Amino acid sequence: MTVFSALDTPTALIDIRQMQANIARMQARMDALGVKLRPHVKTSKSLPVVQAQLEAGARGITVSTLKEAEEFFAAGIDDILYAVGIAPNKLPRALALRRKGCDLKLITDNVAGAEAVARFGREHGETFEVWIEMDVDGNRSGIPPGSDLLLDVGRALHEDGVRLGGVMTHAGGSYAFDTPAALQGAAEQERAGTVRAAERLRQAGLPCPVVSVGSTPTALSAQTLEGVTEMRAGVYVFFDLVMHNIGVCRMDEIALSVLTTVIGHQEEKGWAIVDAGWMAMSRDRGTQKQKRDFGLGQVCAEDGTPIDGYIVDSANQEHGIIARAGGTDHGIAKRFPVGTRLRILPNHACATAAQFPEYHAIAPGSGAEIWTRFQGW
Amino acid sequence: MTVFSALDTPTALIDIRQMQANIARMQARMDALGVKLRPHVKTSKSLPVVQAQLEAGARGITVSTLKEAEEFFAAGIDDILYAVGIAPNKLPRALALRRKGCDLKLITDNVAGAEAVARFGREHGETFEVWIEMDVDGNRSGIPPGSDLLLDVGRALHEDGVRLGGVMTHAGGSYAFDTPAALQGAAEQERAGTVRAAERLRQAGLPCPVVSVGSTPTALSAQTLEGVTEMRAGVYVFFDLVMHNIGVCRMDEIALSVLTTVIGHQEEKGWAIVDAGWMAMSRDRGTQKQKRDFGLGQVCAEDGTPIDGYIVDSANQEHGIIARAGGTDHGIAKRFPVGTRLRILPNHACATAAQFPEYHAIAPGSGAEIWTRFQGW
Repeated sequence: MTVFSALDTPTALIDIRQMQANIARMQARMDALGVKLRPHVKTSKSLPVVQAQLEAGARGITVSTLKEAEEFFAAGIDDILYAVGIAPNKLPRALALRRKGCDLKLITDNVAGAEAVARFGREHGETFEVWIEMDVDGNRSGIPPGSDLLLDVGRALHEDGVRLGGVMTHAGGSYAFDTPAALQGAAEQERAGTVRAAERLRQAGLPCPVVSVGSTPTALSAQTLEGVTEMRAGVYVFFDLVMHNIGVCRMDEIALSVLTTVIGHQEEKGWAIVDAGWMAMSRDRGTQKQKRDFGLGQVCAEDGTPIDGYIVDSANQEHGIIARAGGTDHGIAKRFPVGTRLRILPNHACATAAQFPEYHAIAPGSGAEIWTRFQGW
Repeated sequence: MTVFSALDTPTALIDIRQMQANIARMQARMDALGVKLRPHVKTSKSLPVVQAQLEAGARGITVSTLKEAEEFFAAGIDDILYAVGIAPNKLPRALALRRKGCDLKLITDNVAGAEAVARFGREHGETFEVWIEMDVDGNRSGIPPGSDLLLDVGRALHEDGVRLGGVMTHAGGSYAFDTPAALQGAAEQERAGTVRAAERLRQAGLPCPVVSVGSTPTALSAQTLEGVTEMRAGVYVFFDLVMHNIGVCRMDEIALSVLTTVIGHQEEKGWAIVDAGWMAMSRDRGTQKQKRDFGLGQVCAEDGTPIDGYIVDSANQEHGIIARAGGTDHGIAKRFPVGTRLRILPNHACATAAQFPEYHAIAPGSGAEIWTRFQGW
């Protein structure tokens, strides 16, 4: 009788003890490197998870939506970075948060965005704090550290109605690597590029108190963070198969899984069919191009022990097809009879977690606690 | 000034007029073919959508989760098919629904499942109605129509505690086709296989009043449904790019889209970055292997007019990267300046809709209505 044997399926499980270990590991690392940790709460969107991060030493949070900012501010967290380039139409919601006392920071990587914030701030008598988003690896948004645009945006943010608070980047390109040397290189590229941007702003007479970097792979690989003031990372709180393939966690450190039940088989094809389809796992195929492809997830016994070689091979909305990777198990109906309960480790914890309105958080010797998470923008 | 110009982004929009046209088209077709329409409500999970389907003539609904059954039964709908093989651990919830007066039908494709329902029914003095799931195209679950297993399951369901209500299938294999001839063939294969299964049961002295088939491509392609009593289809209510590629809808018949705002650019790469990432669009890449790959969605102007050649090329959680398919538009920052509002048509309406806690339903000449949808199991 486990603490979760009475749960309906599919259910998202958090292993509390492992989550706490992941939080402690990241916090200890940032403490040793001498930077603040500002966790990205888009992964969990759940207050008990974020409270555990703050209690372990995190200072402030990073959010991906204004909904997250509103929810966590309502729960008493006021140091919040909204780490997606601000759209001008979102400024009224940002203003409302600041007027309630939230120390909300915005970001931008372009002059139009900077000018829109400054103008809106002047019109409403509010001084917004904005950080400049840098691009250190060509992955997504941001300004390359050597670009003239950096100073143009910096000057547009050094105006009435806005305060230039610093620079930030996300080394999303690090997800493409899986060796310590390559990851250390990505971390150093992230650090050096962001510090360089800060220095260029300061040399131009512009303020740049904050130098913020962040991704779980680089956070766990950086050898030095000299010149950096804070680290943002998110998925480390749960970890997942993508992070395992990258090499920054063991499989048994993954703290999020989906509990599921076998509902049928196609024996000739070697399929066991479970009630966790893509609605539960998400459609994230993050391990597809990595060194080991886990399909839509790694199959484990109900107690969480991985069953080597068995993956969620494909899925429909509420059907997951479990099969042996690279082979056909004609005995799968005997191995996993109808009613068997299994746990699936996700490719991408942020995506799988987003499919659920709540987690069941489990710990040895106690019942499952329900931790709600919110959805939407 | 459109009815949705004040909406925050990203937002899921339903074009009410187009949705009504899609509903009318399917209903007229089923009326002409002489079968009941039992729409699959997993696509919308929203009461106003389902009410529109019932008002147009649908009889009963199909659900993919017991949560859907509970929600729609609470709203007054009592003829419900739960079209995922019943897991024994879900029987208490099914029993609770039946005891409240819900005419809930279950399905199974195996003897263990059939016996579990019969045993549970006897133990609780309830007669469950169960239909047998057939496999007509090797796509997923179900029993091949010629298999001896059909009669074994039929006999296990013809016992105290359970009533054998019929046979059902889902021709999910039809999604692989894109010509009228191939789709008509898939529809006939679905019809013929399911009717054959019903005849085999009847010849064995077992009851089989219902013969239920269903998928949007086959529903819109079947030339006859002789022997069939009802059709289940879901995604037709909104349609999507996958259905457009299959050939069963025009692009301008897609009634669901995601409203988004441009937040930045990488001009050298020809990227415009919007606030609809995979959290809004889902990770569904359903058009990847079809005749036209739309990435994560087709870009349209704010009024819904497609902008040919521009797609959501890739995405992070809250960032969508818009680019010209197969080319680089170095003028993209001028074409879509920061603050530009666009609409994105989804690959797979069921998956994109699931990312949102509510829709904004729009119609010419009236404001946007909020239609809530629910999440979870």
